[in-house]
Amino acid sequence: MSDRLQARLDAVYAIGGGPGANRIGYSPEEDEAHRLVAGWMAELGLEVDVDPDGNLVGRRAGEDPGLAEVWAGSHLDSVPEGGRFDGPLGVLAALEAVSRLGRCRRTLGVVVFRDEERGCRGSRAFVARGRLPGAFVEVHHEQGTRLTTRDAPLGIVTRITGYKRVERVIEGRPGHAGTTPMEGREDALVRAAEEILRVRDVALSIPGTVATVGRIEAEPGAANVIPGSVRFTIDARAPDADRLSRLLGELGIDPSEAQAPVAFAGASVEALRHAVASRGLPLVELDSGAGHDAGVLAHAGVDAAMLFVRAGGEGVSHSPDETCSDVDVALAVDVLTDALAALAEAPGATPR
Amino acid sequence: MSDRLQARLDAVYAIGGGPGANRIGYSPEEDEAHRLVAGWMAELGLEVDVDPDGNLVGRRAGEDPGLAEVWAGSHLDSVPEGGRFDGPLGVLAALEAVSRLGRCRRTLGVVVFRDEERGCRGSRAFVARGRLPGAFVEVHHEQGTRLTTRDAPLGIVTRITGYKRVERVIEGRPGHAGTTPMEGREDALVRAAEEILRVRDVALSIPGTVATVGRIEAEPGAANVIPGSVRFTIDARAPDADRLSRLLGELGIDPSEAQAPVAFAGASVEALRHAVASRGLPLVELDSGAGHDAGVLAHAGVDAAMLFVRAGGEGVSHSPDETCSDVDVALAVDVLTDALAALAEAPGATPR
Repeated sequence: MSDRLQARLDAVYAIGGGPGANRIGYSPEEDEAHRLVAGWMAELGLEVDVDPDGNLVGRRAGEDPGLAEVWAGSHLDSVPEGGRFDGPLGVLAALEAVSRLGRCRRTLGVVVFRDEERGCRGSRAFVARGRLPGAFVEVHHEQGTRLTTRDAPLGIVTRITGYKRVERVIEGRPGHAGTTPMEGREDALVRAAEEILRVRDVALSIPGTVATVGRIEAEPGAANVIPGSVRFTIDARAPDADRLSRLLGELGIDPSEAQAPVAFAGASVEALRHAVASRGLPLVELDSGAGHDAGVLAHAGVDAAMLFVRAGGEGVSHSPDETCSDVDVALAVDVLTDALAALAEAPGATPR
Repeated sequence: MSDRLQARLDAVYAIGGGPGANRIGYSPEEDEAHRLVAGWMAELGLEVDVDPDGNLVGRRAGEDPGLAEVWAGSHLDSVPEGGRFDGPLGVLAALEAVSRLGRCRRTLGVVVFRDEERGCRGSRAFVARGRLPGAFVEVHHEQGTRLTTRDAPLGIVTRITGYKRVERVIEGRPGHAGTTPMEGREDALVRAAEEILRVRDVALSIPGTVATVGRIEAEPGAANVIPGSVRFTIDARAPDADRLSRLLGELGIDPSEAQAPVAFAGASVEALRHAVASRGLPLVELDSGAGHDAGVLAHAGVDAAMLFVRAGGEGVSHSPDETCSDVDVALAVDVLTDALAALAEAPGATPR
């Protein structure tokens, strides 16, 4: 990748100190990252705008500003102790691509959504306001090993899996750890442990689905007191509606308000396919197991697409071990630039 | 129980607000309880003294102050969301008993040890200073249902089980909850859940032993991140050295620095037996599954004893549901008074 892109990734990663990235949505650290990127947008001559939910957009007006706009971007928030690429890569690749393009027929935009990691809150608020671009392309770290397995630097996402996240509370009866015989116990943490293993077993039994308990709290939380109550999260995902319904059913999770799976199938995906193929790269298409802002926009009717960049190491994400090679990132910027150029010059009322 | 004892239990329980008692060792709430009780000691004409570790003693000098002293008491700290009786009952019963006794041959003392719930820190510091009474009697809520089962209001403790408490860390590999297939995961919380169930199974397999995981923390602790590290406590107890050694061995816990089981078998236990029998009450002897300040003093060579008071409800302790009946508490104060009187008038250099 370019020295500038590398330096900018480093600058964003350095915010808040380590270990890893610590820029939780709407925290002072996410605010600081937004200010930094807003400055780079202004240097590039973009018109910078922050919406009432804190989402940041830098735009260069097109020759025909009445046409639907073409945006690229991602997010700058992170999970606790997250990685260098998840989010910032998509934002900074979009800035690089737009810096290479002159004024186009359509208005170009670079967008940074808020608080993606806790359920795409920024992009959800954005679409709720109804101010949508015509097309949106998001570059992202793969967060897996499928591109490595297929020896491909880039992949085109054609579907985002559906998911639901719930909090569960298991009750027991607190008591003294020394005086309550094992036989009479109602230990909420023992019950939670059984449920955590059942969650794992259910997901293992339905191919392609995943379920995770990521957060847990035991009350009262003293070493010599049997837990009387345990609260934990379940994050359940499946690549299609049938398996999502089966997974949620077996986990005892209410399926209403689940995020439905969404397909990417419009002009943006076509533009990525064309750009990948014309550079002689292998054309790999894949699902995304993670939710993304592009999925939220697609649900709202935007012609969205995603370009995955091969993950280094063992494909680890949401961890300081997250990596992408310089060469792969440079290819992603090239492909994104080509795709945005094609979309931004497309005729018609929308890029479709 | 007397209106005064009831009102004092209520006053201590009210400190810090609810739910339950919240007077962690060395917290401002424990400090406040100590100040309250020091005031009641002073009202009773006791000489009040606070040692460098914060332990509180109120003493009435005996006719022969050169003889070994006779003390009663307990602690005022609590677990988080603890009960009304665990600790304060022993302190306030001792104050009632001493208020009924005049000047005796030996010096009488009421002692309040600090921070009992997190490993008897106050009494351990106290014995480390080497200033020991000759005899010590502690009244305490049973924290179980054995007295209820045997239809006895009071029980005499003849042994305190041994125990060890450790913290364990289980490592895994953090990763994105949506993109890491179930098959490739190294989920630290799934591993911890398996270990929590194994801890339960090991204790169930050795009769009379107990083992508890009371506190757990998963890192990084986000709903959409596979836990990379989980830290939890194990509290393991057994009534004798053989079973303690077997329990710790099967749990993989280093047996060094374990608290050894301790027997109560001196003049104080004899005085309690005599007092219980002479009031026509059933003579029930039992083990204590919980560690207590009396056990720490016995280990240090003090002639210690404990009197358990039948627990109401289902014997629950370390919880706001902890109860004792008024009648049973009144009997405990009577028996404690008789036993202290006998010990305080005993001839010889020590009450033994």
